[in-house]
Amino acid sequence: MSIDLTETSITEAVQRTFDGAEDERVKELFICLVQHLHDFTREVRLTGAEWFKVMDFLERVGKICNPTRQEYVLLSDILGLSVLVDLIHHPGIGSVTDSTLLGPFYVEGRPTAENGSDISGGVAGTPLFFNGRVLDPEGNAVAGARVDTWHSDGEGFYDVQMPERLHGRLAMRALLTTDDEGRFWYRSVAPRYYPVPTDGPCGEILRAANRSPMRPEHLHFWLHAEGFEPLITMLVRRDDPYVDRDAVFGVRRSLVVDFVQRDAGETAPDGTRMDEPFQTVERTFVLARTERALPH
Amino acid sequence: MSIDLTETSITEAVQRTFDGAEDERVKELFICLVQHLHDFTREVRLTGAEWFKVMDFLERVGKICNPTRQEYVLLSDILGLSVLVDLIHHPGIGSVTDSTLLGPFYVEGRPTAENGSDISGGVAGTPLFFNGRVLDPEGNAVAGARVDTWHSDGEGFYDVQMPERLHGRLAMRALLTTDDEGRFWYRSVAPRYYPVPTDGPCGEILRAANRSPMRPEHLHFWLHAEGFEPLITMLVRRDDPYVDRDAVFGVRRSLVVDFVQRDAGETAPDGTRMDEPFQTVERTFVLARTERALPH
Repeated sequence: MSIDLTETSITEAVQRTFDGAEDERVKELFICLVQHLHDFTREVRLTGAEWFKVMDFLERVGKICNPTRQEYVLLSDILGLSVLVDLIHHPGIGSVTDSTLLGPFYVEGRPTAENGSDISGGVAGTPLFFNGRVLDPEGNAVAGARVDTWHSDGEGFYDVQMPERLHGRLAMRALLTTDDEGRFWYRSVAPRYYPVPTDGPCGEILRAANRSPMRPEHLHFWLHAEGFEPLITMLVRRDDPYVDRDAVFGVRRSLVVDFVQRDAGETAPDGTRMDEPFQTVERTFVLARTERALPH
Repeated sequence: MSIDLTETSITEAVQRTFDGAEDERVKELFICLVQHLHDFTREVRLTGAEWFKVMDFLERVGKICNPTRQEYVLLSDILGLSVLVDLIHHPGIGSVTDSTLLGPFYVEGRPTAENGSDISGGVAGTPLFFNGRVLDPEGNAVAGARVDTWHSDGEGFYDVQMPERLHGRLAMRALLTTDDEGRFWYRSVAPRYYPVPTDGPCGEILRAANRSPMRPEHLHFWLHAEGFEPLITMLVRRDDPYVDRDAVFGVRRSLVVDFVQRDAGETAPDGTRMDEPFQTVERTFVLARTERALPH
């Protein structure tokens, strides 16, 4: 019976309509979701006009999404949900490298690259040399790990934010593979702190809250290796002005690293004698074994 | 400081970013929303894969929306939120007619019609004659009230669900105006129970829950009159098989009415001698005065 419901009784009436779900998890998720959505609506006494605004907002977020603009991911990011989901499952234990949020700029069709190659895609900027190593929890090299990396240019823009300038080409992103010593390395251009996109619906929230849209300078990494948990992480520049107030709550102290400034005339990690200033970043990543691979 | 957050501390960190909102209501809404979204995420231990599915789902709901397909309104309807918002502000008091949810089929560009006219738009079906009256709480006629009405055809489809058959014309909907006695009346075709649209993302939820998508037969009304609160309501057929299990929780007992079956040869309310069976529905609506209009 779902007739003559009251402000209170409607919640259980809606929850009971999920009793017939065959998947217990579906049932659990919706019963909990309905409880919290209804509690929120009751607690704030949401008005009809506000409800209309919410529907319109959610529609506009969906409409602006495309494969290179993930406004729903951004909405989740600025509400702290993306990091919360990550923290629930990766609270940070032992020697394993901390994970963090994916962010809205990962693109599936990124190119593969050889170690040592320049992945900047011809974008101008201060040369940056990254040297990484992937290890298992016991300190052994993980060979053949696949490492996605992506980052902004020196003005804080990702390739997908400037399709006209790049003629739709992807740049400053690549999929690399670790060698027998677990190493991977590439050359690119130095990124910079930047605002999350504020020209869409999420910008309305940030402006209404007078919130900073800024993220500190960082490099993204997504590592996959057989027998190990995938690791989504990033490395954040230690002396960045926004390091302790990331707009999307993604900074962990363990992921803060030095972006080392080198002078013209010094030698790059790949042996090149540089005739301009450049930066170097180094980092070792430690992967967690998949639970299936652990002995019982 | 939003660095090194934990599963617990992140909620307050996100809430604090709304402290700078100039609009106190914006601040209140987001602090409460963040609390419930985070509590939900923690309680169900939402996984990264589930989070991806949610983002994808919300994007698809937005993408399918257009001026005649309000999938976000439908999502709100099937989760009981639309009725909850209505119940919070219109719990049902005194002589005033109960309100209920708007539903996803209201269309702004509907035609105006004279009282007594046929608003079926040429759609075939059993003739239905509706006679309504609009009163104030003291029983006096409300003249000049603007009354929107809209309903499905005898197979349960709204005009906007069959644009090809109707060549994009609107039908079975109109805006009428009450006469000096507060009366409005029209001819149309009898509606029928129907499933909410299940060919979009919301259908996935209903199927996962093994939920009925059916709504009992009803006529929608949206009344506006100067000095009175707008009233969104509907009238539901008493002997409908789905009257006590509306998929969107919108039935109130006070809104259940007789759809009276008449035989061929009887006289319609407008004086026409009918050569086919027809139906009649009558109802008086009582509007609440706006709070601004009440003496203090």
